[in-house]
Amino acid sequence: MQPVKVYADRRSQPSRAVIIFCRVNQIDFEEVTVDLFKSQHLTPEFKKVNPMGQVPAIVDGRFKLFESHAILRYLASVFPGVADHWYPADLFTRAKIESILDWHHTNLRRGAATLVQHTALAPFLGLTTSPEAVEQAEKLLMQSLGVIESLWLKGDAKFLLGNPQPSIADLSLVCEIMQLEILGDEVCDRFLGAHEKILIWMDNVRKTTSPHFEEAHELLFQVKARMLQSKAAASNQAFEPSTKLKIASKL
Amino acid sequence: MQPVKVYADRRSQPSRAVIIFCRVNQIDFEEVTVDLFKSQHLTPEFKKVNPMGQVPAIVDGRFKLFESHAILRYLASVFPGVADHWYPADLFTRAKIESILDWHHTNLRRGAATLVQHTALAPFLGLTTSPEAVEQAEKLLMQSLGVIESLWLKGDAKFLLGNPQPSIADLSLVCEIMQLEILGDEVCDRFLGAHEKILIWMDNVRKTTSPHFEEAHELLFQVKARMLQSKAAASNQAFEPSTKLKIASKL
Repeated sequence: MQPVKVYADRRSQPSRAVIIFCRVNQIDFEEVTVDLFKSQHLTPEFKKVNPMGQVPAIVDGRFKLFESHAILRYLASVFPGVADHWYPADLFTRAKIESILDWHHTNLRRGAATLVQHTALAPFLGLTTSPEAVEQAEKLLMQSLGVIESLWLKGDAKFLLGNPQPSIADLSLVCEIMQLEILGDEVCDRFLGAHEKILIWMDNVRKTTSPHFEEAHELLFQVKARMLQSKAAASNQAFEPSTKLKIASKL
Repeated sequence: MQPVKVYADRRSQPSRAVIIFCRVNQIDFEEVTVDLFKSQHLTPEFKKVNPMGQVPAIVDGRFKLFESHAILRYLASVFPGVADHWYPADLFTRAKIESILDWHHTNLRRGAATLVQHTALAPFLGLTTSPEAVEQAEKLLMQSLGVIESLWLKGDAKFLLGNPQPSIADLSLVCEIMQLEILGDEVCDRFLGAHEKILIWMDNVRKTTSPHFEEAHELLFQVKARMLQSKAAASNQAFEPSTKLKIASKL
């Protein structure tokens, strides 16, 4: 059997979720780095893997798939070694997890990813941003964190829905929230500081998937450190047009 | 066995998808109307059904569920009378359908629903809108239609992915596109006129689910007619502050 090819950039939160899932479940896979900052996702070669030009994507034999939640469901279903708790066979438990996975797209992800894109990443992506877009994203992110804490982590829940073990929803959502790290500690504290249950839950997910969780997030913390350096340098200098390119090449 | 309670407003596209699915598959269900224009989705009673305050939501015995895709997956899985093509047991076919369902949230739905909200519905929802929001939504909608046509309807595909029968993805996406009707024929033509394959596919979905498709969309066409009347009246009058309330009560 050929290993599953996982096309990913570890700076992308859904890419990390798929990589951690494969490692934890000892799935035989080969990671193929698609460097978003070098626009490798836009090459004709990669478009043959995923015509959307997005990571993650997988190729399993002749079968190609994109969208991280679809990938996680597929991997959990075709690899018999994956423990049931990741994507339970019980239809009621599974349906509740599906509900969170669907909710995620238009709530937590839309809030968190839009905020990161329109603040930390905007200069590197050449994105036109606006205070309204940032404000809306912050509001949606804050609401989403409130929902997670009050609805799915109520009581002494160790994982979402009070499940005793994590599901693919736990992994997807925690990887998304981890992305806030690149906004810096102050911003992270502003969003997460008041959500103790979320911090405990994130740590539960980390511990259950350790050391793969930490290993998959190493690059994110490197990006964070470089962004902070770049911010500090920018505040000590006048406008320097080559900053964007220098940082992109360093990443 | 108690019938499944389906909480829905037929003006909402995911509500219609669930209702059509239940009717076509002869699922024993009771439709409970949650009138969005009367803010019934925000009442404490409905929040007990769905704490998100959104339709559709279902209650099956003591089991509660929200998010239309999760609902469709659940209904297809627990009711043995539902034909396999709606949500195939084959893991490869199913994974491709999951990929479309996930893609839908951040592409077609985000484009189409945002456009409708920021144009036709904005005055009724009291929504602050901007030309940028409308422009972005139009762009995303147009891109999404292009993806559907070129990727999932390529060749002589009768349904998405070239499947011979529709899946829950066909139903969800077609109900979303149908929502454009309330923008009027001219706007519909602008988006769909150049997409002949999409028009044929939509008609295939309609025919396969007839007469339930037409019946579930009756209210949408009534809304469309009233919106056109209201637009015509507004263009003949000066500003009339009570328009919003009058139309909301008529709907």
